[in-house]
Amino acid sequence: MSFPTDLEIAEKADIQHIKKIAEKLNIPEDDLEYYGKYKAKLPLKYIDEQKIAQSNLVLVSAINPTPAGEGKTTVTVGLTDGLNKIGKKAIAVLREPSLGPVFGIKGGAAGGGYAQVIPMVDINLHFTGDFNAIEKANNLLSALIDNNLQNKKNNLNIDPRTIVWKRVMDMNDRALRNVVIGLGGTANGIPREESFNITPASEVMAILCMSNDFKDLKEKLGNIFIGYTFDKQAIYCRDLKAEGAMAILLRDAIKPNLVQTLEGNPAILHGGPFANIAQGTNTIIATKTGMSLGDYVVTEAGFGADLGAEKFLHIKCHYAGFKPKVLVLVTTIRAMRYHGGAKKGEYENPQFEAVKKGIENLQKHIENAKNWNLKPIVAINHFATDSEEEIQFLKDECEKLGVKAIVADEFTMGGEGMKELAAEVVNAAENYGNNFTPLYDVEDSVENKIETIAKNIYGADGVEYAAKAKADLKSIYNLGLDKLPICMAKTQKSLSDDEKKIGRPSGFTVTVREFEFAAGAGFIIPILGNMMRMPGLPSIPASENMDIDDDGNITGLS
Amino acid sequence: MSFPTDLEIAEKADIQHIKKIAEKLNIPEDDLEYYGKYKAKLPLKYIDEQKIAQSNLVLVSAINPTPAGEGKTTVTVGLTDGLNKIGKKAIAVLREPSLGPVFGIKGGAAGGGYAQVIPMVDINLHFTGDFNAIEKANNLLSALIDNNLQNKKNNLNIDPRTIVWKRVMDMNDRALRNVVIGLGGTANGIPREESFNITPASEVMAILCMSNDFKDLKEKLGNIFIGYTFDKQAIYCRDLKAEGAMAILLRDAIKPNLVQTLEGNPAILHGGPFANIAQGTNTIIATKTGMSLGDYVVTEAGFGADLGAEKFLHIKCHYAGFKPKVLVLVTTIRAMRYHGGAKKGEYENPQFEAVKKGIENLQKHIENAKNWNLKPIVAINHFATDSEEEIQFLKDECEKLGVKAIVADEFTMGGEGMKELAAEVVNAAENYGNNFTPLYDVEDSVENKIETIAKNIYGADGVEYAAKAKADLKSIYNLGLDKLPICMAKTQKSLSDDEKKIGRPSGFTVTVREFEFAAGAGFIIPILGNMMRMPGLPSIPASENMDIDDDGNITGLS
Repeated sequence: MSFPTDLEIAEKADIQHIKKIAEKLNIPEDDLEYYGKYKAKLPLKYIDEQKIAQSNLVLVSAINPTPAGEGKTTVTVGLTDGLNKIGKKAIAVLREPSLGPVFGIKGGAAGGGYAQVIPMVDINLHFTGDFNAIEKANNLLSALIDNNLQNKKNNLNIDPRTIVWKRVMDMNDRALRNVVIGLGGTANGIPREESFNITPASEVMAILCMSNDFKDLKEKLGNIFIGYTFDKQAIYCRDLKAEGAMAILLRDAIKPNLVQTLEGNPAILHGGPFANIAQGTNTIIATKTGMSLGDYVVTEAGFGADLGAEKFLHIKCHYAGFKPKVLVLVTTIRAMRYHGGAKKGEYENPQFEAVKKGIENLQKHIENAKNWNLKPIVAINHFATDSEEEIQFLKDECEKLGVKAIVADEFTMGGEGMKELAAEVVNAAENYGNNFTPLYDVEDSVENKIETIAKNIYGADGVEYAAKAKADLKSIYNLGLDKLPICMAKTQKSLSDDEKKIGRPSGFTVTVREFEFAAGAGFIIPILGNMMRMPGLPSIPASENMDIDDDGNITGLS
Repeated sequence: MSFPTDLEIAEKADIQHIKKIAEKLNIPEDDLEYYGKYKAKLPLKYIDEQKIAQSNLVLVSAINPTPAGEGKTTVTVGLTDGLNKIGKKAIAVLREPSLGPVFGIKGGAAGGGYAQVIPMVDINLHFTGDFNAIEKANNLLSALIDNNLQNKKNNLNIDPRTIVWKRVMDMNDRALRNVVIGLGGTANGIPREESFNITPASEVMAILCMSNDFKDLKEKLGNIFIGYTFDKQAIYCRDLKAEGAMAILLRDAIKPNLVQTLEGNPAILHGGPFANIAQGTNTIIATKTGMSLGDYVVTEAGFGADLGAEKFLHIKCHYAGFKPKVLVLVTTIRAMRYHGGAKKGEYENPQFEAVKKGIENLQKHIENAKNWNLKPIVAINHFATDSEEEIQFLKDECEKLGVKAIVADEFTMGGEGMKELAAEVVNAAENYGNNFTPLYDVEDSVENKIETIAKNIYGADGVEYAAKAKADLKSIYNLGLDKLPICMAKTQKSLSDDEKKIGRPSGFTVTVREFEFAAGAGFIIPILGNMMRMPGLPSIPASENMDIDDDGNITGLS
C-alpha cells in the first residue's frame, strides 16, 4: 500500500470542533468568530505583553533548499505536536497559503504527511477570506489612483509614468504580468502600463503582517508610496484619502485565524507575504496572540535562514520587540548531497561523499545563528532514503560545533516522531539566556546595513551597486526612508546572489541591481536578482485533475 | 433631529444570534455553518420539493424607476416583516450586494431605513465570500485560457481574437474596461485585447444562481462558451477541463446565506447577478430553500417589471418550475410625476397633473401582470412629500383596473407600516389560483420569443435587427443555442429601448444591436443598448469619507 496523499490523511483526520481547540487555550466560545465548525477568528484583545515576555518563541528556518523545499512547515507543525506530546502548551503560528499556486504545480501548503494543519481544503481555498480582503484593499487603491488621473476635480496631478503601485490577483496568471490599461477613449481612463502581482506580493499584505492594531494599520496604509506628481512631489496613499476605506476592507482580516494540527493542537494561520520582496512571515498580531496564549510558539520564516531568519530577526523582531529563544535549522540529507554537487537524479539517494562536502552550507548557517547569539538546533527532516552513515556524519559534524542534530520524523509519525527534538528545544529554551542581538542598527546608512548582511550572513566580500540602484538609493534618501530595516530580495537557492553557487560560496560580491521600498510596511528592498511576482501555470495545470462530487467531496487537491 | 442614516439604524439594531433566527425555521445549530455570530450558511439538504409546492412565492417588482430607484428592496424586506407581524412564517430571499459600488456613489444595498437586512456592514463588505469565490472561479478560467494559448503541449488552437470570456473584479474600476494583456515577450503570454467586468456581470454568477446542485453547477460551468479555434470550432470551458476546479472554488458559495431583518425575521441572501445582461435575481437554491422553510417567500427581481419580472418569470421560473402567487408592483408618487413629465427638482414635490399622466406607466405594468395571469398588488412606497390627492388618485385608478393599491410605510415604520399590504398579499395568495402562464414557449424561434416580449411587455410595434445582431443570430443557431430562454438587455428607465421615452410609449420599434449568449447559465442575451459592465468611481468617491476607529467601528458607509 502506498503512503496516502496529504488530502487523504487530512480528510480522514478526526477533526475537532474549533471550540474544543479554543478551550485548550482558555478562550470562551463567545470570543470566537466562527467560519464553519473548524475555523475561527480570534479577537485582538488576547494580546498580552506580559505573557509574551514569558513565552518561548521558537523560530524554524532552514539551510538553502533544493528546488523541492526541505519541509520547514512540516517540521514546524510536527514540532508543535511533539512539544504538546511532552506536556508543553505549544502553538504553531504560520502563514496562510496563497490560492494561485494550488492550481499550478505546487498544490496545497499546510504542511504534509502526518504533520499538517487542517481543515486542509478550506485552508488551501478561500480560508477565512483574508487574502481576498487584502486583494480588494490593494485594488481599491489602484482604482482610486486611476480615478484620480481621470478626474478634473480633486486631481492630484499624478504623473502616470511614475506610478509604482500595482494591482494584484491571487492567481497564477502570467498574461497579467505586463498589461496596458485605460484604453478605449476619454470615458475609460488614462492609458498607462500596469502589472498585476500575485496577492502575497501586495504591500497591503506586508502591512497587515506588520501592524499591531487598527490605528497602526491605517497609518501604515496611509504611508504607501504611489509615485510622483508632474512636479516631482511624492504621492502617498493618504493623499488619496484611501486608508480609511482600505482598513474597513481589512476589518476582519486583521484578526488571527485559529485552526488545529492533525493531532488537535492549536495552530494560528495569519497573513502570507512573499519571502523575497517582503518579510515572508505571519502577522505580528498572530505571533503575539500565540505567545499570549501558549508557553511555546513555533513559527517559521520563508526560505533559508540567510533570507527567512535574517528578515525575521532584523525586520519582524525589530518592529515587534520579539526575541526568539531557539532557532531550529531544518536540513535534509538530500540538501547536503545537493550542496555537495549531486545533481537531480543523484541527490535522491545516498551520496556520502557529496554529503561530506555539502555540509559546509549547514555549517555556515550554524555560524550565522551564533552571530546573532542564538542557540541553533539542527532538525534532520527524515527521508526513507537517508543512510545511517550520512545521518551519523551530520550529527558528528554538528557536535563538533557544539550543536545538536536530531532526526525529525514528523512526516510519517507526527508528534511521536518529534519528541526528541521537542525535548531539546525545551532544554535550550530553559537553559540558555535570551541573547538575540541584531547584526545592524537601523539608524545606520542603507549601504552599511546591506554590507553587514552580505558579509556576515552571505559570506560575501562586498556589495556592488548597479547604476539604477544608485539612482534609487538617492530617492530613498530624498524621501527620508533610509532609516528603515532592509528586506533583501535574492535567490533562496544560494547563500550568494547566484543560484548556481551551491555549498558555501566564498570570494564573491553581491550586486544590488535596483531598489524598491515599502514605505507603508516599513522596509527597503534591495533587488539582487529577477524576482517573480506573478507565477504562471504549467502545461498541464493541476486544476485539470480536480473534481468535486455531488456531495461536495473534493479530489485532486494535492 | 434628522432621520438616522441606514448605518446608524443598522448598528443600533438589537441583532440576534443567527442560531435564534435558525430556530424559528426549525434548523438545529449543528446544521449551521457560522460566519461569525450573525451570518450562517445553510446546507442544501433543506430543499424539499413538496414543501416548495405548498409555499407562497411573492414576487416584488416595480414600475420603470426614476434614477434614484423606487425601493423594491425596502418593500421586500418590509413586506416580510409585515407578514410576520400578522402571523405568517415569511422569509425574505434577496440578492447579495456587490462590493464595487460601495466605494462609489451608491453606498450599501441591503434595504434602507427601518426595512433592512443586517448585519449591514458585513453584508456590504465581503459577507460570506461568495462574490470572491465567483471572481476566483471566473478568473481561474481566464488564466487557463491564456495558459493554453501560451503552451505548446496541450494546445487547443484557440484564436485569441475570438475569446469572449472576460476577467472580472468586484470593484468600480473604469481603467480596466479596455486593456491589453500578455505583453512583455515570449515568457509572458500572448498579447490580446481583454476587458474586466465587475463580478456581478460574470457568467459564473449567473450559473451559480441558476444551479440546483453540484452536478448541475459543474455541467453548466462546462458549457461556458469561450471562443473559437483557428479552424472555427467552438471551444467550451469543458475543453479546458476547468469546471471541476471552478466548482471546487464554489464549494461554499453554492450554499445559501441566512441573515435577519431589523425585526429579527429570517432573510436569505444569495447570489447577485446583473439585471441587464443576466437574470438579476437570487439563486434558485436560495429561493427553493426559502420556500422549503417558510410559508411565504418574498423575493425581488432587479429593475422594473418589464425587465426584472419578465426575466424572473421566463428564465428563473422556467428552469426552477416556480409559480409565483402574487406580484407586488412597487411604485412611488415620485415616479408617477417623473413619467408624467416632471423633471428633477420638480418630481420631488407634489405635481398632481404629472401624476395623472404618468400613471400610464403603472397601468401598462398592471396589464402586463394580467398577461401572465398574475394578480398584481400595487405598493405605494411612501414619501413624506406625497400628497393625499395624488395617493387617492392612484388608488382610484388602480381600483378601476380591479387592483388594490396600498401605501407601504416600511422605511419609517418597518413591518408595522406594512400590515395592510401583507394582509392583501395573504388574501391574494389564499383566494386566487396559481395561474401563472409564460408568454412564450422556449422551443419557439429566437425571433418569435423576442417579438413576444417586445410586443406584449414593452408595447412595441416590432423588432429590428442590426447587421451585427443578424450575424450573431446565425452563430446562435449554428451552436444550437436557439432553444434557450431570452434575457433582454435594455434600459430599465423606459418600457422601450430608449430611456427618454417615459410614461407608456407607443408607436415604436426596438432594435437588437447584437447578441450575446450564456451557454452555461442557459439564456440568449439580445443587446438593446449600451450595457455597463464595469462602473467607474465619481470625482469624490464615497471611500474618502470612510473610516474605522481603534475598536473597529465603521463610519461613512451609507
